[in-house]
Amino acid sequence: MTEFELIARIAAQTGRRADVALGIGDDGAVLDVPAGQQLVAVCDTLNVGVHFAADADAADIGWKALAVNLSDLAAMGATPAWALMSLSLPQADPDFVAGLMRGFGQLAAASGIALVGGDTTRGPLAVGITALGLVPAGQALTRSGAQVGDAVFVSGTLGDAAAALRLARHGVARTLLQRLHRPEPRGALGVALRGRAHAVIDVSDGLLADLGHIASASGVGIVLDAAALPASQALRAVADASFRVRCQASGGDDYELAFTLPDDRIAAVRVALAESGLPLTRIGRVVEGEGVVLRDAAGHALEPGASGWDHFAEPTA
Amino acid sequence: MTEFELIARIAAQTGRRADVALGIGDDGAVLDVPAGQQLVAVCDTLNVGVHFAADADAADIGWKALAVNLSDLAAMGATPAWALMSLSLPQADPDFVAGLMRGFGQLAAASGIALVGGDTTRGPLAVGITALGLVPAGQALTRSGAQVGDAVFVSGTLGDAAAALRLARHGVARTLLQRLHRPEPRGALGVALRGRAHAVIDVSDGLLADLGHIASASGVGIVLDAAALPASQALRAVADASFRVRCQASGGDDYELAFTLPDDRIAAVRVALAESGLPLTRIGRVVEGEGVVLRDAAGHALEPGASGWDHFAEPTA
Repeated sequence: MTEFELIARIAAQTGRRADVALGIGDDGAVLDVPAGQQLVAVCDTLNVGVHFAADADAADIGWKALAVNLSDLAAMGATPAWALMSLSLPQADPDFVAGLMRGFGQLAAASGIALVGGDTTRGPLAVGITALGLVPAGQALTRSGAQVGDAVFVSGTLGDAAAALRLARHGVARTLLQRLHRPEPRGALGVALRGRAHAVIDVSDGLLADLGHIASASGVGIVLDAAALPASQALRAVADASFRVRCQASGGDDYELAFTLPDDRIAAVRVALAESGLPLTRIGRVVEGEGVVLRDAAGHALEPGASGWDHFAEPTA
Repeated sequence: MTEFELIARIAAQTGRRADVALGIGDDGAVLDVPAGQQLVAVCDTLNVGVHFAADADAADIGWKALAVNLSDLAAMGATPAWALMSLSLPQADPDFVAGLMRGFGQLAAASGIALVGGDTTRGPLAVGITALGLVPAGQALTRSGAQVGDAVFVSGTLGDAAAALRLARHGVARTLLQRLHRPEPRGALGVALRGRAHAVIDVSDGLLADLGHIASASGVGIVLDAAALPASQALRAVADASFRVRCQASGGDDYELAFTLPDDRIAAVRVALAESGLPLTRIGRVVEGEGVVLRDAAGHALEPGASGWDHFAEPTA
């Protein structure tokens, strides 16, 4: 049995979809896109030593490789449909593949996405996923529609994953590590933002960097209130204020959605999301101008230095 | 400018499609699938040291990374539409990226495919492509429809790339190297085979291995005539009979299409392809049973050994 046959066998146990006319096992997958829907395509690769450690748990890698792609689909307002996996492995390793597919399969089943193709090659460990989703025609969410006066919101909490990564050597609470290794894509929020948000992005590179993409794509500026950035109890327990804000503003790996919309539309989004318990926090405002400014309680702009937030000291403990 | 912005800038110069509602630059691409068409999705990754040498020409890598995927689309009878690229690079290298995109862009323009998304990461050099194509609903070609009595055909010539790879250290004719580094996917043939071929596969792993997939997926056997396997003049000039047959039968990297169909249908395929000049050679027959047998002129089965064709000696010159 080849590695991809092993993957195919495991994939067959997790999620089938009636719109897969032909799945794994031929030269390509054949898929039915419903009338009135547009296709949304995203791809992201996780590399060993860059996106995860060489001793990372295989199931965590499988989960996260899919999660980062589902996060992009969520930011587009797309419903997950199909995935392809390109797996590079240094040598045959059925246990690793089984673990990888266990984590991948858990999230695939939860999100309703079906693995329909892929390939395996020899090479340094890398997992590349292409995820395909569906969105009602004309309703895809983009980065470019933010309007002056919009409120800026973010889902969940920020900075947990970044803190976990930076403090791992000191020992970190399981809840923070979970945010780093098992991010939960915000698919339901993406759907709820259709027709309501003016601009959406997922927070992968860090809040300021990602909102910077909205600002430049939309031709606007964004002003954020540092004190408003949502933090988990776990983060507050391990981080002083300056380290916490650094993790929240530029840590990345959050896989929350940041979005802008008119104030009077957030109530409907909250109603649509009520069952999920996912908090939505207002963190700032779209203004005329360009770029993203983070302000402290006194209204002073906090400036990142060359290496991040130079005036924020990393905790030594 | 990030690497992916560089890729996006180059991609914008090669091929736009009206069915790309939103291309590179957001969290995902938004694509219009026409009514009556099914989506065909394939992916393949090329890794340094596995699929190409560390000193390979960047433009050749870009061409081939797309070509191997277009070959899969051709085997499905799909028309190329959109591609995503996942690029791992050990360090920033604008010259390499420009070269890669030159080769990619040449084939993209020739095949009408548009690059609509992707990502770049740090890591050992690897180029992963997901290609998306379109096929009229219900007309996708598969591996599983071969019927006893079908004729077996292959396009073009076999073994050139394998000979080039194995003889490279001796110096090889440019025409053989071209087959290795710049394979030409057989998209027009794939379209011409719609509604005519019973089973199709592209020859990437070697003719016998790939026809073996058709045999097992279709529940049939295949008998091939070694003397009928098409060889280029360039291959005949450098290879004795045994080395030639080894390259043709199990060398791989040919990216020709092998297919089965009733004898009376090949004429229509030839007419559809007349302008291309692509030869189609009858090489065998679908029979009851299983597996693939290669027979010499006397009707004796030629047997591959553990390391390939053990009784074929590699030329020492």
